[in-house]
Amino acid sequence: MAERENKAVIKAPLHLSEDKGAIIEAVIKAALKAVDPTEAVRRVLHREDDVLEVAGKRYDLNRFHRIVVVGGGKAGSPMAAAVEEILGDRITKGLVNVKEGYVLEPAPKRIGINQAGHPTPNEAGLEGARRIIEIVSPLGEDDLVIALISGGGSALMPLPAEGITLADKKAVTDVLLRCGATINEINAVRKHISALKGGQLARAAYPATVISLILSDVVGSPLDTIASGPTAPDTTTFADAWAVLEKYELFDDVPESVIRRLRRGLAGEIPETPKPGDPVFDRVQNVVIADNRIAALAAKEEAERHGFTAMLLTTYLEGEAREVAKAVAALGKGVAANGDPVSPPACLILGGETTVTITGRGRGGRNQELGLAAAIALDGWENVTVVTLATDGTDGPTDAAGAIIDGTTVRRAQEKGLSPLAYLRDNDSYHFLQALGDLLITGPTNTNVNDLIFVFVFPG
Amino acid sequence: MAERENKAVIKAPLHLSEDKGAIIEAVIKAALKAVDPTEAVRRVLHREDDVLEVAGKRYDLNRFHRIVVVGGGKAGSPMAAAVEEILGDRITKGLVNVKEGYVLEPAPKRIGINQAGHPTPNEAGLEGARRIIEIVSPLGEDDLVIALISGGGSALMPLPAEGITLADKKAVTDVLLRCGATINEINAVRKHISALKGGQLARAAYPATVISLILSDVVGSPLDTIASGPTAPDTTTFADAWAVLEKYELFDDVPESVIRRLRRGLAGEIPETPKPGDPVFDRVQNVVIADNRIAALAAKEEAERHGFTAMLLTTYLEGEAREVAKAVAALGKGVAANGDPVSPPACLILGGETTVTITGRGRGGRNQELGLAAAIALDGWENVTVVTLATDGTDGPTDAAGAIIDGTTVRRAQEKGLSPLAYLRDNDSYHFLQALGDLLITGPTNTNVNDLIFVFVFPG
Repeated sequence: MAERENKAVIKAPLHLSEDKGAIIEAVIKAALKAVDPTEAVRRVLHREDDVLEVAGKRYDLNRFHRIVVVGGGKAGSPMAAAVEEILGDRITKGLVNVKEGYVLEPAPKRIGINQAGHPTPNEAGLEGARRIIEIVSPLGEDDLVIALISGGGSALMPLPAEGITLADKKAVTDVLLRCGATINEINAVRKHISALKGGQLARAAYPATVISLILSDVVGSPLDTIASGPTAPDTTTFADAWAVLEKYELFDDVPESVIRRLRRGLAGEIPETPKPGDPVFDRVQNVVIADNRIAALAAKEEAERHGFTAMLLTTYLEGEAREVAKAVAALGKGVAANGDPVSPPACLILGGETTVTITGRGRGGRNQELGLAAAIALDGWENVTVVTLATDGTDGPTDAAGAIIDGTTVRRAQEKGLSPLAYLRDNDSYHFLQALGDLLITGPTNTNVNDLIFVFVFPG
Repeated sequence: MAERENKAVIKAPLHLSEDKGAIIEAVIKAALKAVDPTEAVRRVLHREDDVLEVAGKRYDLNRFHRIVVVGGGKAGSPMAAAVEEILGDRITKGLVNVKEGYVLEPAPKRIGINQAGHPTPNEAGLEGARRIIEIVSPLGEDDLVIALISGGGSALMPLPAEGITLADKKAVTDVLLRCGATINEINAVRKHISALKGGQLARAAYPATVISLILSDVVGSPLDTIASGPTAPDTTTFADAWAVLEKYELFDDVPESVIRRLRRGLAGEIPETPKPGDPVFDRVQNVVIADNRIAALAAKEEAERHGFTAMLLTTYLEGEAREVAKAVAALGKGVAANGDPVSPPACLILGGETTVTITGRGRGGRNQELGLAAAIALDGWENVTVVTLATDGTDGPTDAAGAIIDGTTVRRAQEKGLSPLAYLRDNDSYHFLQALGDLLITGPTNTNVNDLIFVFVFPG
């Protein structure tokens, strides 16, 4: 079995002692390794001769006539290769849509990799999605579908319902984004003008068995939201979709074809997306093989291995990065000053994804900005180090994954004549951290499970 | 001994079940009771015949000729009364400056209560501060000073150094606040134009013994910051104060008298404030008798008594209320969804003080706004209840102490046709919460140890 190592290299910033740097590097690597697509597939998919075990469920491979592998998402290529490692020539055929340029070596041999447009869907994606439905539709009770779902899958597997064009679909999405609709509202509409989203891939595969391996880039890992939930029950209805257009008064702004379809759906002329309890899902096993929490728990374990008391606080973190930073800093102070909630050496872990409201003209990303703001709040707290990490290795439009700051960051900035507040005001966290050697650079990690924040508190 | 009960009454909002309401009420009451000035003095000051024990240190009262009680702060009246309960006629005399209207029954008999201006210092405060210095200055080795320090003490005990008027001092403070100086920078200047702040009350009392009982309204309870640290070593110098004027280029803006004094200090013509290690402090015991953490720990214990797994996360919380709210909500979601960091029934506790940047025209306070924003983030999380509490019972310019919101708040608002986002945009949390019965009202609590946030997660 070919070894595929996660290539991420964390250079310990110069301001850290070798010890601290080594521990931080080990924790980051453990987190990223746990959600590496290859590792994640290997961890969940176990084959012994003709028995395939998936997260506690056993499948007799002899039962299956055909085994096909389909899906879409940015992590599709390594996921497909890992499945091929395990199932080899038992795979009949397959097709996975990935983002252009996201084909990794070794590429799978029996599963086709189709490069498609992202974030804007294109014809290649549409063609691939059509073929995926063609592959699974003829399957019967004796067949198995392995679906590989990861972040970006929604745009990479665009399949507008009959009568709707890709352009129509894009127009609707644009209108919904502009009007301030929530992600749940947007999805309610999109699922009802699609032929694949909202459990419809699972329905197309019925009565075949479906094992869906899901790498989640959505906070909280809701199955119906990741890649718009192609193998998950949809709780939204045509009525919900219609209500969204009503609520935001969008009837003049969305294409006529969309209104026509929703109207037909309301009238019961088109079947609903499959709902919870639909027999389709009796044959579907949805397994989240990697997400923010899996990364966080692996990091926790690694920190504990190094003698740290580690605690995962949440994987739902959201909010404006520079303000959330103050709450994160407050946690470090609590540990350092009072041993709340645990005593040093300690590592508190938070996962999720923050946002940045850009008002300046600098360069950065949510994790870097959070790091800069945390550095300001932690000025003088020398035993506290905060690490912020975009797990895909790309924080904002930069080559950095995040920041490694500590209670000396502000002092070191002042020694160089840099004003932390001025850089923060200009949303220029990248150049600030770069000048100090406080950037965290991992390179591309080939995965994405949102962000992690580590608050390390070393003994005083 | 007369019983003095904390009068705070928490009415469980209508939307809570009786069980939930009773638990929440018990936890809030336990927190407030622990930092009630009377309770706090009683907890720390133990007298058995002629022995006074204070936080592990024993004093033989026979040693002391005179015992005087001085100090200042909003909680001065009940603190003085509690000390009088314990020391009775052993008290020679005393004077405590409190805010106008802050005299509580029973008022002390042997200790004078002087009502002074707050937040703007006035002549009454100045006169009281002068008398306090007069009371302690003649004391000798055989005398004991009990200093009672609480929030507001800085403004309530104004004593400008020789040659500086109250108006000069106020002008400096205004200039420093306007120029964006940090609180530490402001204090460096203020301590060096004062005759009482920065350890100078302790020096005036030397060689008498000083027991300073401190009720902290400053996040983290730094002794040198609470009421500007009249009995604590000062780490700042005349040079630091001068550097602040230089940094912000304030020489044209501050009164000539101030510049003259700082210049003389720099030249060594005026003694520095007493520094760490100064023999003055060999005879001083500073004891924080109540602060945010003491309240939080009492709440934790009470929650545990009700079968909740409780955890104090930090007492350093800061940041913009509506964004910190999202981090707080994330903690509730972690518990409810995954048992991170603990499983329900759970109570996570955070202390500190957030801020609100006002852009709207509504009514509210930082705790109410945090509650409203948390409600939006927790929409649908029915088992999560967030309680926000200004421990003085007064959140912003309202009669509410905070909020009790949960995963049903947004739904209940929508049923009434109220838009949570619209109220948030207008900084109108008070009217939103009032309409829903989600306000927390305690009435005045006679104490202030900043804010507490409780995240209750009930079993699903």
